[in-house]
Amino acid sequence: MGASNNVGAMGTSLLASVRALGFTGTIYPVHPQEKEVQGLRAYPSVLDLPEVPDLAVIVLPARLVAQALEDCGRKGLRRAVVISGGFREVGGQGVQMEKDLVQTIRRHGLRLLGPNCIGVTNPHHKLNTTFFPHEGEPGFIGLASQSGSFITQMFNPLARLGLGFSTAFSVGNEADLDIVDCLEYLALCPRTKVIGLYIEGIKRGRAFLETARSIAPRKPIVALYVGGSETGKRAGFSHTGAMAGPDDLYDGMFRQAGVIRAESITELFDFCWVLGSSPRPRGRQVIILTNSGGPGAAAADACGRAGFELPALSPATVQKLTAFVPGTSSLNNPVDLTFSKNPSALFSEIPQALFEEDQADALLVYFLTSSEIVKRSLRFLGVAEDRLVEESLKHIDGQCEALVNVARKFDKPLVGYTFRPLEEPGIRGFLRRGLPVFPGIRRAVRALQALTAYSKFRAGLPAESPADTAS
Amino acid sequence: MGASNNVGAMGTSLLASVRALGFTGTIYPVHPQEKEVQGLRAYPSVLDLPEVPDLAVIVLPARLVAQALEDCGRKGLRRAVVISGGFREVGGQGVQMEKDLVQTIRRHGLRLLGPNCIGVTNPHHKLNTTFFPHEGEPGFIGLASQSGSFITQMFNPLARLGLGFSTAFSVGNEADLDIVDCLEYLALCPRTKVIGLYIEGIKRGRAFLETARSIAPRKPIVALYVGGSETGKRAGFSHTGAMAGPDDLYDGMFRQAGVIRAESITELFDFCWVLGSSPRPRGRQVIILTNSGGPGAAAADACGRAGFELPALSPATVQKLTAFVPGTSSLNNPVDLTFSKNPSALFSEIPQALFEEDQADALLVYFLTSSEIVKRSLRFLGVAEDRLVEESLKHIDGQCEALVNVARKFDKPLVGYTFRPLEEPGIRGFLRRGLPVFPGIRRAVRALQALTAYSKFRAGLPAESPADTAS
Repeated sequence: MGASNNVGAMGTSLLASVRALGFTGTIYPVHPQEKEVQGLRAYPSVLDLPEVPDLAVIVLPARLVAQALEDCGRKGLRRAVVISGGFREVGGQGVQMEKDLVQTIRRHGLRLLGPNCIGVTNPHHKLNTTFFPHEGEPGFIGLASQSGSFITQMFNPLARLGLGFSTAFSVGNEADLDIVDCLEYLALCPRTKVIGLYIEGIKRGRAFLETARSIAPRKPIVALYVGGSETGKRAGFSHTGAMAGPDDLYDGMFRQAGVIRAESITELFDFCWVLGSSPRPRGRQVIILTNSGGPGAAAADACGRAGFELPALSPATVQKLTAFVPGTSSLNNPVDLTFSKNPSALFSEIPQALFEEDQADALLVYFLTSSEIVKRSLRFLGVAEDRLVEESLKHIDGQCEALVNVARKFDKPLVGYTFRPLEEPGIRGFLRRGLPVFPGIRRAVRALQALTAYSKFRAGLPAESPADTAS
Repeated sequence: MGASNNVGAMGTSLLASVRALGFTGTIYPVHPQEKEVQGLRAYPSVLDLPEVPDLAVIVLPARLVAQALEDCGRKGLRRAVVISGGFREVGGQGVQMEKDLVQTIRRHGLRLLGPNCIGVTNPHHKLNTTFFPHEGEPGFIGLASQSGSFITQMFNPLARLGLGFSTAFSVGNEADLDIVDCLEYLALCPRTKVIGLYIEGIKRGRAFLETARSIAPRKPIVALYVGGSETGKRAGFSHTGAMAGPDDLYDGMFRQAGVIRAESITELFDFCWVLGSSPRPRGRQVIILTNSGGPGAAAADACGRAGFELPALSPATVQKLTAFVPGTSSLNNPVDLTFSKNPSALFSEIPQALFEEDQADALLVYFLTSSEIVKRSLRFLGVAEDRLVEESLKHIDGQCEALVNVARKFDKPLVGYTFRPLEEPGIRGFLRRGLPVFPGIRRAVRALQALTAYSKFRAGLPAESPADTAS
């Protein structure tokens, strides 16, 4: 409801997004006058539809929404999304209008997402009710967000990292369904490996704590809470009318529930990335593998500041490595290969030996791979000019494949970092295969911290967690 | 010396880099046997050259370097770069070999950069003695780095941000010229607007402090120090033999000298970006401008945590804005325009009014511009399909130009943030014009913190600084 042939209207963009992603269910535009909307047969009211739809998506002026929901209820719908704003978040009359919505849906047993939200995106089901076109592939990150932008504006950055949403909910004013309900859904969703939360303020604190605590031992939860500063609290209130609480309260709640707290939007998704894709480290012993001293030293310092330890390699490991490394290299930790004579060992024998090192809980690996430099080498080796691009891509992809195969043999995480563009084939090859490679050292180390924190939380639980037995 | 026709050799790549950037001076390859190297006439020894070159670049096995420098000295050269490693950083005999180098150059009055470095890049002079091909345009960041990677691996990321080096020095083992000498050079370099330092350990602490303190009141200095943790200290030592000191010592030294300390490589360059491109804020009052609630609330929270204040708009400012904003918008701070009816005001009248707000020391602006959405709108306005790309780019570039023109009228910084790709025309248009737009909220707020810290340092000085009058 609200889609039309008026090209400036939000509802029109929204219908375009739904169709652009290739939703295969039947769509019924509802419009008081139009007989046809964007080539689809339109109906004057929900009551006139030939069947009962699974979901209503409503983008109408605020004052018309209650009646639209009333019609949905009478028709027998069970689920509705209200995109329209102008309710509690604007105060005054909006507050009463939101109460009216709630009364209407309660009367009919309808459940409602919104109002003042951007809807829901489930790319696995090719459903995108946001007005922003979807980009990238479906993925494993389930999101419940008190801001729609952190769904739509993440389509592109996630796609660049080889990531995507399983389902993402914009909860808006949470007049009915709230962030706790979404959490329950995402806990059960088999396509969701990790749950992300963007929070300006939680209404049902007790329920949140209990729900999150029951989920976290099975599925990691990452949260960004922005209501903890005076400035954040005020901004959140004027955005969705959220009532923010003191920062320590949320911090304590997250700790109790085993929720990993992120410090920024970038971290929220970085943490989801590593938690959804990597084995859990047993401890805080990290081996850094690099072919360049500065990126090694800077990573070592970042690790030290983050509470990681860099164990010396055991004699057995040093022995294994000696065959593959040049005389200039350093077999301390960071393992610095400098300019390797046999770069392919960097993607196979060397990480294999480091994974086998008993003391290593995790590997942090610097990637410099430049397709231009590979091309230059292949040219020197006599590869014909017209086969250079294809051969270099094949060569690079083979290296990525080899390393990912080594990593899969071990129950230890490998986290990469680089300053090369993510589009560089030697980085892309890892991202496509689900190996996290972070742009920058601090992001990689912080992600490893999140992974370690979650691992510790998991290890600290009794064999059966209280939450599990309680359910 | 060390360049050859042997395609795997480092010296060969290096000569290729020098030539690729289009260096216009004369290049003399020196090679014991070859008559011609990469198409240039080669000479058996420096002593045979037809003139005295300005600079020697030496990439030879460590044991041959002292003799090569001896030849340079006898020929009358004054400057040499030694790329070769295998000296102090490997210990043992390497320590003595490095002492020999120093004795040789002292005897002849030669000055030396290195050994165990990657050389120097000055793209303004089309000089790149690193073995990595240069990318992007010359810029305003002067760098002195104890890691060559943070020169070569930054060519691409800096270019993506519209940035570049003025001159970048890899100082290596600092057998002669050290980071303090580079600092002195960069202070005088008219193309360097800001100085970046990557530090694993400073040898001449007192000289560093005095030099930095004399420069910082005129030219900002940003430093990343990675020797402050036990792990960073060990890694730095095995990289360049640097002797790192306790973290607080460096922290105190940086504070005394007015050096802004970065926490990561990413921040080192982010801080250089904003310090080299933005007016200095008078205080800590920030106005956030957004068209989306979540990015506004998250930025407000990040600002609060970073010690910024978000003043309420004065009635005069609210009055000015009312004409340009829709009823759904919020005229608090963050100023949230929601879905503006007149998006062009976002790039002109609205920021103009916010700059004019007395209480505003800085503007933090969220950019969402998507060329796809602009194209969609223009199509709706009747622009022909074959002119859509051109017209949308023109439209977007006009918006960027308009905002940059507004910003230039005021002596207050405008820092942008976005989640769109930096290649998006609506972001690129700002970067090309030197307006910093950060990928992510925390990076933008941290950069604003660095700018504010420097501004405070500058404001705290007496009219004439002690450092100035002492010289």
